[in-house]
Amino acid sequence: MTNTINIVKHSGDIVPFDVEKLITSLKRSQANEELIQQIVQQVNASLYEGITTKQIYKMAFKMLKGKSPVSASRYKLKKALMELGPSGFPFEKLIGKLLSHEGYETKVGVIVEGNCVQHEIDVIAQKDNDHYMIECKYHSDQGRFCNVKIPLYIQSRFLDVEKQWKKQQGHNTKLHKGWVYTNTRLTTDAIQYGTCVGLGLASWDYPKGNGLKERIDKSGLHPLTALTTLTKAEKRKLLDKNIVLCKEIYENSYLLEEIGIDKIRQKKILDDSLQLCNEH
Amino acid sequence: MTNTINIVKHSGDIVPFDVEKLITSLKRSQANEELIQQIVQQVNASLYEGITTKQIYKMAFKMLKGKSPVSASRYKLKKALMELGPSGFPFEKLIGKLLSHEGYETKVGVIVEGNCVQHEIDVIAQKDNDHYMIECKYHSDQGRFCNVKIPLYIQSRFLDVEKQWKKQQGHNTKLHKGWVYTNTRLTTDAIQYGTCVGLGLASWDYPKGNGLKERIDKSGLHPLTALTTLTKAEKRKLLDKNIVLCKEIYENSYLLEEIGIDKIRQKKILDDSLQLCNEH
Repeated sequence: MTNTINIVKHSGDIVPFDVEKLITSLKRSQANEELIQQIVQQVNASLYEGITTKQIYKMAFKMLKGKSPVSASRYKLKKALMELGPSGFPFEKLIGKLLSHEGYETKVGVIVEGNCVQHEIDVIAQKDNDHYMIECKYHSDQGRFCNVKIPLYIQSRFLDVEKQWKKQQGHNTKLHKGWVYTNTRLTTDAIQYGTCVGLGLASWDYPKGNGLKERIDKSGLHPLTALTTLTKAEKRKLLDKNIVLCKEIYENSYLLEEIGIDKIRQKKILDDSLQLCNEH
Repeated sequence: MTNTINIVKHSGDIVPFDVEKLITSLKRSQANEELIQQIVQQVNASLYEGITTKQIYKMAFKMLKGKSPVSASRYKLKKALMELGPSGFPFEKLIGKLLSHEGYETKVGVIVEGNCVQHEIDVIAQKDNDHYMIECKYHSDQGRFCNVKIPLYIQSRFLDVEKQWKKQQGHNTKLHKGWVYTNTRLTTDAIQYGTCVGLGLASWDYPKGNGLKERIDKSGLHPLTALTTLTKAEKRKLLDKNIVLCKEIYENSYLLEEIGIDKIRQKKILDDSLQLCNEH
Protein backbone atom coordinates (compact mmCIF):
# COMPACT_ATOMS: atom_id res chain seq x y z
CA MET A 1 0.00 0.00 0.00
CA THR A 2 1.74 3.15 -1.19
CA ASN A 3 -1.17 5.58 -0.66
CA THR A 4 -0.66 8.07 2.14
CA ILE A 5 -3.18 7.85 4.94
CA ASN A 6 -3.71 11.05 6.92
CA ILE A 7 -4.08 10.70 10.66
CA VAL A 8 -5.26 13.18 13.33
CA LYS A 9 -2.92 14.05 16.21
CA HIS A 10 -3.91 14.93 19.80
CA SER A 11 -3.35 18.59 18.93
CA GLY A 12 -5.88 18.32 16.08
CA ASP A 13 -3.14 18.57 13.43
CA ILE A 14 -3.49 16.28 10.42
CA VAL A 15 -0.29 14.53 9.31
CA PRO A 16 0.52 11.57 7.03
CA PHE A 17 0.84 8.26 8.91
CA ASP A 18 4.51 7.43 9.44
CA VAL A 19 5.19 3.76 10.15
CA GLU A 20 8.70 4.55 11.39
CA LYS A 21 7.28 6.64 14.24
CA LEU A 22 5.06 3.75 15.28
CA ILE A 23 8.05 1.37 15.23
CA THR A 24 10.18 3.79 17.27
CA SER A 25 7.46 4.13 19.90
CA LEU A 26 6.98 0.36 20.03
CA LYS A 27 10.72 -0.18 20.48
CA ARG A 28 10.51 1.92 23.65
CA SER A 29 8.28 -0.84 25.03
CA GLN A 30 11.15 -3.35 24.63
CA ALA A 31 8.77 -5.81 23.00
CA ASN A 32 10.57 -8.32 20.79
CA GLU A 33 11.03 -7.72 17.06
CA GLU A 34 8.45 -10.32 16.10
CA LEU A 35 5.69 -8.82 18.23
CA ILE A 36 6.50 -5.34 16.93
CA GLN A 37 6.18 -6.62 13.35
CA GLN A 38 2.84 -8.26 14.17
CA ILE A 39 1.50 -5.04 15.65
CA VAL A 40 2.72 -2.95 12.71
CA GLN A 41 1.00 -5.30 10.30
CA GLN A 42 -2.26 -5.19 12.19
CA VAL A 43 -2.17 -1.41 12.49
CA ASN A 44 -1.35 -1.06 8.79
CA ALA A 45 -4.31 -3.26 7.90
CA SER A 46 -6.68 -1.23 10.07
CA LEU A 47 -5.71 2.30 9.01
CA TYR A 48 -8.30 4.58 7.48
CA GLU A 49 -8.31 8.25 6.48
CA GLY A 50 -8.78 10.45 9.55
CA ILE A 51 -7.95 7.80 12.19
CA THR A 52 -6.63 9.45 15.36
CA THR A 53 -3.22 8.76 16.94
CA LYS A 54 -5.23 7.86 20.03
CA GLN A 55 -7.01 5.05 18.18
CA ILE A 56 -3.73 3.76 16.73
CA TYR A 57 -2.16 3.85 20.18
CA LYS A 58 -5.12 1.96 21.67
CA MET A 59 -4.87 -0.77 19.06
CA ALA A 60 -1.13 -1.23 19.56
CA PHE A 61 -1.49 -1.11 23.34
CA LYS A 62 -4.20 -3.77 23.34
CA MET A 63 -2.02 -6.21 21.38
CA LEU A 64 1.00 -5.48 23.58
CA LYS A 65 -1.04 -5.95 26.73
CA GLY A 66 -2.27 -9.33 25.54
CA LYS A 67 1.19 -10.65 24.70
CA SER A 68 3.54 -8.78 27.02
CA PRO A 69 2.01 -6.82 29.93
CA VAL A 70 5.33 -5.30 30.99
CA SER A 71 6.01 -4.03 27.47
CA ALA A 72 2.52 -2.52 27.53
CA SER A 73 3.37 -0.76 30.81
CA ARG A 74 6.48 0.73 29.26
CA TYR A 75 4.52 1.69 26.16
CA LYS A 76 1.88 3.54 28.15
CA LEU A 77 4.31 5.79 30.02
CA LYS A 78 2.97 9.02 28.52
CA LYS A 79 -0.59 8.04 29.33
CA ALA A 80 0.52 6.83 32.76
CA LEU A 81 1.89 10.31 33.49
CA MET A 82 -1.47 11.79 32.45
CA GLU A 83 -3.22 9.40 34.83
CA LEU A 84 -1.29 10.77 37.81
CA GLY A 85 -3.85 13.63 38.03
CA PRO A 86 -6.20 15.30 38.69
CA SER A 87 -3.91 17.14 41.13
CA GLY A 88 -0.32 17.87 40.16
CA PHE A 89 1.08 16.46 43.41
CA PRO A 90 1.90 12.86 42.31
CA PHE A 91 3.77 14.27 39.30
CA GLU A 92 5.83 16.48 41.63
CA LYS A 93 6.66 13.45 43.76
CA LEU A 94 7.68 11.50 40.66
CA ILE A 95 10.03 14.30 39.60
CA GLY A 96 11.44 14.41 43.13
CA LYS A 97 12.11 10.64 43.03
CA LEU A 98 13.71 10.91 39.58
CA LEU A 99 16.11 13.60 40.76
CA SER A 100 16.90 11.67 43.95
CA HIS A 101 17.74 8.69 41.77
CA GLU A 102 20.04 10.93 39.74
CA GLY A 103 21.95 11.81 42.89
CA TYR A 104 20.25 14.97 44.08
CA GLU A 105 19.11 15.66 47.59
CA THR A 106 15.48 16.66 47.12
CA LYS A 107 12.59 18.26 48.97
CA VAL A 108 9.07 18.26 47.55
CA GLY A 109 6.43 20.94 48.23
CA VAL A 110 8.28 23.40 50.42
CA ILE A 111 7.52 27.01 51.34
CA VAL A 112 10.55 29.24 50.87
CA GLU A 113 11.13 32.92 51.47
CA GLY A 114 11.78 34.98 48.40
CA ASN A 115 13.11 38.49 48.45
CA CYS A 116 9.61 39.95 47.96
CA VAL A 117 7.14 37.19 48.87
CA GLN A 118 6.96 33.57 50.04
CA HIS A 119 6.74 30.85 47.40
CA GLU A 120 5.59 27.27 47.44
CA ILE A 121 8.26 25.42 45.49
CA ASP A 122 7.40 22.04 43.96
CA VAL A 123 10.88 20.50 44.20
CA ILE A 124 14.19 21.77 45.54
CA ALA A 125 17.17 19.69 44.41
CA GLN A 126 20.81 20.02 45.51
CA LYS A 127 23.99 18.20 44.48
CA ASP A 128 27.54 19.45 45.00
CA ASN A 129 27.45 22.99 43.72
CA ASP A 130 24.02 22.86 42.08
CA HIS A 131 20.99 24.29 43.79
CA TYR A 132 17.80 23.96 41.75
CA MET A 133 14.34 25.44 42.17
CA ILE A 134 11.97 23.25 40.18
CA GLU A 135 8.40 24.00 39.19
CA CYS A 136 6.28 21.17 37.84
CA LYS A 137 3.49 21.80 35.35
CA TYR A 138 1.19 18.86 35.16
CA HIS A 139 -1.54 18.69 32.51
CA SER A 140 -4.08 15.91 32.30
CA ASP A 141 -4.74 16.72 28.65
CA GLN A 142 -2.19 15.59 26.05
CA GLY A 143 -3.24 18.33 23.64
CA ARG A 144 -2.17 21.07 26.07
CA PHE A 145 1.22 22.65 25.68
CA CYS A 146 3.25 24.47 28.28
CA ASN A 147 3.24 27.97 26.77
CA VAL A 148 5.62 30.89 27.25
CA LYS A 149 3.65 32.29 30.21
CA ILE A 150 4.84 29.37 32.36
CA PRO A 151 8.62 30.00 32.04
CA LEU A 152 7.96 33.78 32.23
CA TYR A 153 6.25 33.34 35.57
CA ILE A 154 8.72 30.77 36.89
CA GLN A 155 11.69 32.95 35.95
CA SER A 156 10.36 35.79 38.16
CA ARG A 157 9.72 33.37 40.97
CA PHE A 158 13.22 31.96 40.59
CA LEU A 159 14.83 35.42 40.60
CA ASP A 160 12.91 36.28 43.76
CA VAL A 161 14.00 33.06 45.49
CA GLU A 162 17.59 33.32 44.20
CA LYS A 163 17.94 36.82 45.63
CA GLN A 164 17.09 35.39 49.04
CA TRP A 165 19.29 32.27 48.62
CA LYS A 166 22.28 34.44 47.79
CA LYS A 167 22.01 36.09 51.20
CA GLN A 168 22.70 32.72 52.87
CA GLN A 169 26.20 31.80 53.92
CA GLY A 170 28.23 29.90 51.34
CA HIS A 171 25.67 30.46 48.62
CA ASN A 172 27.59 33.00 46.58
CA THR A 173 29.64 30.23 44.97
CA LYS A 174 26.68 27.95 44.18
CA LEU A 175 25.01 27.55 40.82
CA HIS A 176 21.39 28.52 41.34
CA LYS A 177 19.08 27.53 38.56
CA GLY A 178 15.34 27.54 37.99
CA TRP A 179 13.70 24.65 36.13
CA VAL A 180 10.36 23.92 34.52
CA TYR A 181 9.33 20.26 34.38
CA THR A 182 6.20 19.36 32.43
CA ASN A 183 4.58 16.06 31.45
CA THR A 184 3.37 17.49 28.14
CA ARG A 185 5.20 19.57 25.53
CA LEU A 186 6.75 23.02 25.56
CA THR A 187 5.85 25.57 22.87
CA THR A 188 8.64 26.93 20.66
CA ASP A 189 8.30 30.28 22.42
CA ALA A 190 8.57 28.67 25.84
CA ILE A 191 11.81 26.92 24.80
CA GLN A 192 13.18 30.09 23.18
CA TYR A 193 12.48 32.24 26.25
CA GLY A 194 13.63 29.65 28.81
CA THR A 195 16.89 28.99 26.95
CA CYS A 196 17.52 32.72 26.53
CA VAL A 197 17.20 33.53 30.25
CA GLY A 198 19.00 30.39 31.42
CA LEU A 199 16.00 28.54 32.83
CA GLY A 200 16.25 24.76 32.67
CA LEU A 201 13.49 23.00 30.72
CA ALA A 202 12.42 19.38 30.86
CA SER A 203 9.36 17.91 29.19
CA TRP A 204 8.11 14.60 27.86
CA ASP A 205 10.47 14.88 24.87
CA TYR A 206 12.77 17.79 25.70
CA PRO A 207 15.74 18.06 25.67
CA LYS A 208 15.90 15.74 22.68
CA GLY A 209 17.33 12.37 23.68
CA ASN A 210 17.09 13.18 27.38
CA GLY A 211 13.41 13.97 27.89
CA LEU A 212 11.34 12.57 30.74
CA LYS A 213 10.52 9.45 28.71
CA GLU A 214 14.19 8.55 28.31
CA ARG A 215 15.05 9.42 31.92
CA ILE A 216 12.19 7.37 33.32
CA ASP A 217 12.95 4.42 31.02
CA LYS A 218 16.62 4.58 32.03
CA SER A 219 15.95 4.83 35.77
CA GLY A 220 13.13 2.30 35.86
CA LEU A 221 11.11 4.78 37.92
CA HIS A 222 7.85 4.06 36.14
CA PRO A 223 4.73 5.53 37.72
CA LEU A 224 2.38 2.93 39.19
CA THR A 225 -0.31 4.17 36.81
CA ALA A 226 1.61 2.32 34.07
CA LEU A 227 0.70 -1.09 35.50
CA THR A 228 -1.91 -2.90 33.44
CA THR A 229 -2.72 -5.27 36.30
CA LEU A 230 -4.18 -2.59 38.57
CA THR A 231 -7.64 -1.04 38.13
CA LYS A 232 -8.10 2.72 38.01
CA ALA A 233 -9.67 2.69 41.49
CA GLU A 234 -6.75 0.70 42.92
CA LYS A 235 -4.24 3.10 41.36
CA ARG A 236 -6.13 6.02 42.90
CA LYS A 237 -6.04 4.34 46.34
CA LEU A 238 -2.29 3.78 46.10
CA LEU A 239 -1.66 7.38 44.96
CA ASP A 240 -3.77 8.53 47.91
CA LYS A 241 -1.49 6.48 50.16
CA ASN A 242 1.29 8.72 48.98
CA ILE A 243 3.14 6.33 46.72
CA VAL A 244 3.64 6.98 43.05
CA LEU A 245 6.13 4.48 41.58
CA CYS A 246 5.85 0.79 40.61
CA LYS A 247 9.00 0.35 42.60
CA GLU A 248 7.32 1.64 45.74
CA ILE A 249 4.58 -0.97 45.40
CA TYR A 250 7.28 -3.58 45.55
CA GLU A 251 8.85 -1.92 48.57
CA ASN A 252 5.51 -1.52 50.35
CA SER A 253 3.73 -4.68 49.27
CA TYR A 254 1.56 -4.70 52.44
CA LEU A 255 -0.37 -1.81 50.85
CA LEU A 256 -1.87 -4.19 48.27
CA GLU A 257 -3.39 -6.21 51.11
CA GLU A 258 -4.53 -2.98 52.74
CA ILE A 259 -6.50 -1.82 49.70
CA GLY A 260 -8.19 -5.23 49.48
CA ILE A 261 -6.43 -7.04 46.63
CA ASP A 262 -6.49 -10.85 46.84
CA LYS A 263 -3.31 -12.94 47.15
CA ILE A 264 -3.32 -14.17 43.55
CA ARG A 265 -3.53 -10.67 42.06
CA GLN A 266 -1.00 -9.40 44.64
CA LYS A 267 1.55 -11.83 43.26
CA LYS A 268 0.82 -10.85 39.68
CA ILE A 269 1.08 -7.13 40.48
CA LEU A 270 4.35 -7.58 42.37
CA ASP A 271 5.81 -9.65 39.51
CA ASP A 272 4.92 -6.97 36.99
CA SER A 273 6.20 -4.17 39.24
CA LEU A 274 9.48 -5.95 39.76
CA GLN A 275 9.95 -6.66 36.08
CA LEU A 276 9.07 -3.09 35.10
CA CYS A 277 11.41 -1.36 37.54
CA ASN A 278 14.30 -3.76 37.96
CA GLU A 279 15.33 -4.48 34.43
CA HIS A 280 17.52 -1.44 34.03
CA MET B 1 -32.78 46.75 64.80
CA THR B 2 -29.50 46.24 66.61
CA ASN B 3 -29.02 42.56 65.78
CA THR B 4 -26.18 41.84 63.40
CA ILE B 5 -27.20 40.28 60.10
CA ASN B 6 -24.51 38.24 58.39
CA ILE B 7 -24.24 38.57 54.62
CA VAL B 8 -22.37 36.50 52.03
CA LYS B 9 -19.80 38.22 49.81
CA HIS B 10 -18.92 37.32 46.20
CA SER B 11 -15.84 35.56 47.51
CA GLY B 12 -18.02 33.35 49.71
CA ASP B 13 -16.83 35.07 52.89
CA ILE B 14 -19.47 35.77 55.53
CA VAL B 15 -19.35 39.24 57.11
CA PRO B 16 -21.73 41.34 59.22
CA PHE B 17 -23.83 43.75 57.14
CA ASP B 18 -22.35 47.24 57.31
CA VAL B 19 -24.80 50.01 56.41
CA GLU B 20 -21.97 52.53 56.02
CA LYS B 21 -20.51 50.52 53.14
CA LEU B 22 -23.87 50.51 51.39
CA ILE B 23 -24.15 54.29 51.84
CA THR B 24 -20.60 54.85 50.51
CA SER B 25 -21.29 52.76 47.43
CA LEU B 26 -24.59 54.56 46.84
CA LYS B 27 -22.86 57.94 47.11
CA ARG B 28 -20.66 56.95 44.18
CA SER B 29 -23.84 56.91 42.11
CA GLN B 30 -24.35 60.64 42.85
CA ALA B 31 -27.99 59.94 43.73
CA ASN B 32 -29.45 62.60 46.02
CA GLU B 33 -29.48 62.18 49.77
CA GLU B 34 -33.21 61.50 49.93
CA LEU B 35 -33.09 58.66 47.43
CA ILE B 36 -30.08 57.14 49.20
CA GLN B 37 -32.03 57.21 52.48
CA GLN B 38 -35.03 55.54 50.85
CA ILE B 39 -32.88 52.78 49.45
CA VAL B 40 -31.08 52.21 52.75
CA GLN B 41 -34.44 51.91 54.52
CA GLN B 42 -35.77 49.43 52.01
CA VAL B 43 -32.60 47.34 52.11
CA ASN B 44 -32.60 47.36 55.91
CA ALA B 45 -36.20 46.16 55.94
CA SER B 46 -35.43 43.32 53.52
CA LEU B 47 -32.27 41.94 55.08
CA TYR B 48 -32.16 38.35 56.25
CA GLU B 49 -29.42 36.09 57.57
CA GLY B 50 -27.26 34.81 54.70
CA ILE B 51 -28.43 37.33 52.06
CA THR B 52 -25.74 37.81 49.42
CA THR B 53 -24.08 41.12 48.54
CA LYS B 54 -25.30 40.40 45.01
CA GLN B 55 -28.92 40.38 46.17
CA ILE B 56 -28.44 43.60 48.14
CA TYR B 57 -26.80 45.20 45.13
CA LYS B 58 -29.66 44.10 42.87
CA MET B 59 -32.27 45.57 45.20
CA ALA B 60 -30.46 48.90 45.45
CA PHE B 61 -29.80 48.97 41.71
CA LYS B 62 -33.46 48.35 40.88
CA MET B 63 -34.61 51.29 43.02
CA LEU B 64 -31.93 53.55 41.57
CA LYS B 65 -32.79 52.54 38.04
CA GLY B 66 -36.46 53.39 38.60
CA LYS B 67 -35.79 56.83 40.01
CA SER B 68 -32.51 57.94 38.44
CA PRO B 69 -31.21 55.89 35.48
CA VAL B 70 -27.95 57.81 35.26
CA SER B 71 -27.21 57.22 38.95
CA ALA B 72 -27.93 53.55 38.31
CA SER B 73 -25.39 53.58 35.47
CA ARG B 74 -22.76 55.04 37.75
CA TYR B 75 -23.68 52.57 40.47
CA LYS B 76 -23.27 49.60 38.15
CA LEU B 77 -19.73 50.48 37.04
CA LYS B 78 -18.15 47.36 38.55
CA LYS B 79 -20.77 45.15 36.95
CA ALA B 80 -20.45 47.12 33.70
CA LEU B 81 -16.73 46.28 33.61
CA MET B 82 -17.60 42.61 34.08
CA GLU B 83 -20.03 42.84 31.19
CA LEU B 84 -17.27 43.91 28.79
CA GLY B 85 -16.35 40.21 28.32
CA PRO B 86 -16.16 37.42 27.40
CA SER B 87 -12.94 38.46 25.65
CA GLY B 88 -10.53 40.83 27.40
CA PHE B 89 -10.23 43.11 24.39
CA PRO B 90 -12.90 45.75 25.27
CA PHE B 91 -11.31 46.12 28.73
CA GLU B 92 -7.92 46.74 27.10
CA LYS B 93 -9.50 49.40 24.90
CA LEU B 94 -11.11 51.02 27.93
CA ILE B 95 -7.76 51.17 29.71
CA GLY B 96 -6.19 52.63 26.55
CA LYS B 97 -8.88 55.36 26.43
CA LEU B 98 -8.44 56.11 30.12
CA LEU B 99 -4.69 56.62 29.74
CA SER B 100 -5.20 58.72 26.59
CA HIS B 101 -7.59 60.89 28.57
CA GLU B 102 -4.89 61.24 31.24
CA GLY B 103 -2.49 62.62 28.63
CA TYR B 104 -0.65 59.50 27.46
CA GLU B 105 -0.03 58.57 23.87
CA THR B 106 -1.32 55.00 23.69
CA LYS B 107 -1.27 51.95 21.47
CA VAL B 108 -3.52 48.94 22.16
CA GLY B 109 -2.69 45.34 21.24
CA VAL B 110 0.76 45.61 19.72
CA ILE B 111 3.43 43.00 19.02
CA VAL B 112 6.83 44.09 20.32
CA GLU B 113 10.23 42.47 20.22
CA GLY B 114 11.64 41.47 23.56
CA ASN B 115 15.24 40.48 24.14
CA CYS B 116 14.36 36.77 24.07
CA VAL B 117 10.92 36.47 22.42
CA GLN B 118 8.14 38.57 20.86
CA HIS B 119 5.31 39.71 23.11
CA GLU B 120 1.79 40.87 22.48
CA ILE B 121 1.40 43.90 24.71
CA ASP B 122 -2.11 45.02 25.69
CA VAL B 123 -1.36 48.75 26.00
CA ILE B 124 1.78 50.82 25.49
CA ALA B 125 1.53 54.33 26.98
CA GLN B 126 4.03 57.16 26.67
CA LYS B 127 4.11 60.68 28.13
CA ASP B 128 7.21 62.87 28.44
CA ASN B 129 9.78 60.60 30.03
CA ASP B 130 7.43 57.75 30.92
CA HIS B 131 7.24 54.63 28.82
CA TYR B 132 4.79 52.05 30.12
CA MET B 133 4.16 48.44 29.17
CA ILE B 134 0.67 47.59 30.42
CA GLU B 135 -0.92 44.17 30.73
CA CYS B 136 -4.66 43.97 31.34
CA LYS B 137 -6.19 41.08 33.25
CA TYR B 138 -9.89 40.91 32.69
CA HIS B 139 -12.07 38.54 34.69
CA SER B 140 -15.78 38.09 34.10
CA ASP B 141 -16.23 36.70 37.60
CA GLN B 142 -16.23 39.12 40.57
CA GLY B 143 -15.10 36.40 42.94
CA ARG B 144 -11.82 35.92 41.08
CA PHE B 145 -8.74 37.70 42.30
CA CYS B 146 -5.63 38.59 40.38
CA ASN B 147 -3.10 36.40 42.21
CA VAL B 148 0.68 36.66 42.52
CA LYS B 149 1.29 34.57 39.37
CA ILE B 150 0.04 37.45 37.22
CA PRO B 151 2.59 40.09 38.36
CA LEU B 152 5.31 37.39 38.42
CA TYR B 153 4.66 36.61 34.79
CA ILE B 154 4.23 40.23 33.74
CA GLN B 155 7.46 41.25 35.47
CA SER B 156 9.47 38.77 33.35
CA ARG B 157 7.72 39.95 30.22
CA PHE B 158 8.46 43.56 31.16
CA LEU B 159 12.15 42.85 31.81
CA ASP B 160 12.40 41.12 28.43
CA VAL B 161 10.76 44.07 26.64
CA GLU B 162 12.70 46.68 28.64
CA LYS B 163 16.00 45.09 27.66
CA GLN B 164 15.05 45.58 24.02
CA TRP B 165 13.68 49.11 24.56
CA LYS B 166 16.92 50.20 26.17
CA LYS B 167 18.76 49.38 22.96
CA GLN B 168 16.77 52.09 21.13
CA GLN B 169 18.16 55.56 20.71
CA GLY B 170 17.26 58.04 23.45
CA HIS B 171 15.76 55.32 25.64
CA ASN B 172 18.48 55.21 28.26
CA THR B 173 17.06 58.30 29.97
CA LYS B 174 13.42 57.14 29.91
CA LEU B 175 11.51 55.68 32.82
CA HIS B 176 10.39 52.24 31.71
CA LYS B 177 7.73 50.67 33.85
CA GLY B 178 5.54 47.59 33.66
CA TRP B 179 1.93 47.73 34.85
CA VAL B 180 -0.85 45.31 35.68
CA TYR B 181 -4.39 46.58 35.23
CA THR B 182 -7.24 44.38 36.41
CA ASN B 183 -11.00 44.88 36.70
CA THR B 184 -11.20 42.74 39.83
CA ARG B 185 -9.04 42.69 42.95
CA LEU B 186 -5.37 41.96 43.60
CA THR B 187 -4.36 39.47 46.29
CA THR B 188 -2.14 40.70 49.14
CA ASP B 189 0.73 38.66 47.69
CA ALA B 190 0.26 40.18 44.25
CA ILE B 191 0.44 43.69 45.74
CA GLN B 192 3.44 42.80 47.91
CA TYR B 193 5.39 41.30 45.00
CA GLY B 194 4.45 44.01 42.48
CA THR B 195 5.35 46.80 44.88
CA CYS B 196 8.63 45.11 45.79
CA VAL B 197 9.86 44.77 42.18
CA GLY B 198 8.57 48.17 41.08
CA LEU B 199 5.69 46.98 38.95
CA GLY B 200 2.73 49.38 38.75
CA LEU B 201 -0.60 47.97 39.93
CA ALA B 202 -4.09 49.22 39.20
CA SER B 203 -7.30 47.42 40.06
CA TRP B 204 -10.93 48.19 40.77
CA ASP B 205 -10.00 49.62 44.18
CA TYR B 206 -6.20 49.88 44.14
CA PRO B 207 -4.37 52.10 44.80
CA LYS B 208 -6.74 53.26 47.51
CA GLY B 209 -8.45 56.48 46.48
CA ASN B 210 -7.18 56.22 42.91
CA GLY B 211 -8.49 52.84 41.75
CA LEU B 212 -10.20 52.29 38.42
CA LYS B 213 -13.57 53.21 39.93
CA GLU B 214 -12.33 56.66 40.96
CA ARG B 215 -10.44 57.25 37.71
CA ILE B 216 -13.42 56.27 35.57
CA ASP B 217 -15.82 58.35 37.67
CA LYS B 218 -13.46 61.35 37.43
CA SER B 219 -12.89 61.05 33.69
CA GLY B 220 -16.49 60.26 32.78
CA LEU B 221 -15.19 57.42 30.63
CA HIS B 222 -17.93 54.99 31.63
CA PRO B 223 -18.17 51.80 29.60
CA LEU B 224 -21.29 51.57 27.44
CA THR B 225 -22.26 48.42 29.34
CA ALA B 226 -23.21 50.77 32.21
CA LEU B 227 -26.20 52.14 30.30
CA THR B 228 -29.51 50.84 31.62
CA THR B 229 -31.33 51.86 28.43
CA LEU B 230 -29.50 49.39 26.16
CA THR B 231 -30.28 45.66 26.04
CA LYS B 232 -27.50 43.10 26.40
CA ALA B 233 -27.72 42.23 22.70
CA GLU B 234 -27.43 45.90 21.73
CA LYS B 235 -24.39 46.37 23.98
CA ARG B 236 -22.78 43.32 22.37
CA LYS B 237 -23.41 44.76 18.89
CA LEU B 238 -21.83 48.08 19.84
CA LEU B 239 -18.79 46.38 21.42
CA ASP B 240 -18.45 44.33 18.22
CA LYS B 241 -18.40 47.60 16.30
CA ASN B 242 -15.28 48.42 18.22
CA ILE B 243 -16.64 51.04 20.60
CA VAL B 244 -16.55 50.67 24.34
CA LEU B 245 -17.49 53.98 26.03
CA CYS B 246 -20.82 55.78 26.56
CA LYS B 247 -19.03 58.80 25.20
CA GLU B 248 -18.30 57.02 21.94
CA ILE B 249 -22.00 56.28 21.46
CA TYR B 250 -22.59 60.01 21.62
CA GLU B 251 -19.77 60.66 19.15
CA ASN B 252 -20.96 57.91 16.77
CA SER B 253 -24.70 58.19 17.16
CA TYR B 254 -25.30 56.81 13.65
CA LEU B 255 -24.35 53.41 15.07
CA LEU B 256 -27.61 53.28 17.05
CA GLU B 257 -29.54 53.55 13.78
CA GLU B 258 -27.22 50.95 12.26
CA ILE B 259 -27.97 48.34 14.93
CA GLY B 260 -31.70 48.93 14.45
CA ILE B 261 -32.75 51.06 17.43
CA ASP B 262 -35.83 53.25 16.82
CA LYS B 263 -35.71 57.07 16.98
CA ILE B 264 -37.43 57.37 20.37
CA ARG B 265 -35.02 55.01 22.11
CA GLN B 266 -32.06 56.57 20.25
CA LYS B 267 -32.88 59.91 21.87
CA LYS B 268 -33.20 58.37 25.32
CA ILE B 269 -29.89 56.50 24.95
CA LEU B 270 -28.07 59.60 23.72
CA ASP B 271 -29.49 61.68 26.60
CA ASP B 272 -28.31 59.12 29.15
CA SER B 273 -24.89 58.77 27.49
CA LEU B 274 -24.40 62.52 27.46
CA GLN B 275 -25.44 62.90 31.08
CA LEU B 276 -23.24 60.02 32.20
CA CYS B 277 -20.08 61.18 30.47
CA ASN B 278 -20.29 64.94 30.42
CA GLU B 279 -21.01 65.80 34.00
CA HIS B 280 -17.42 65.74 35.11
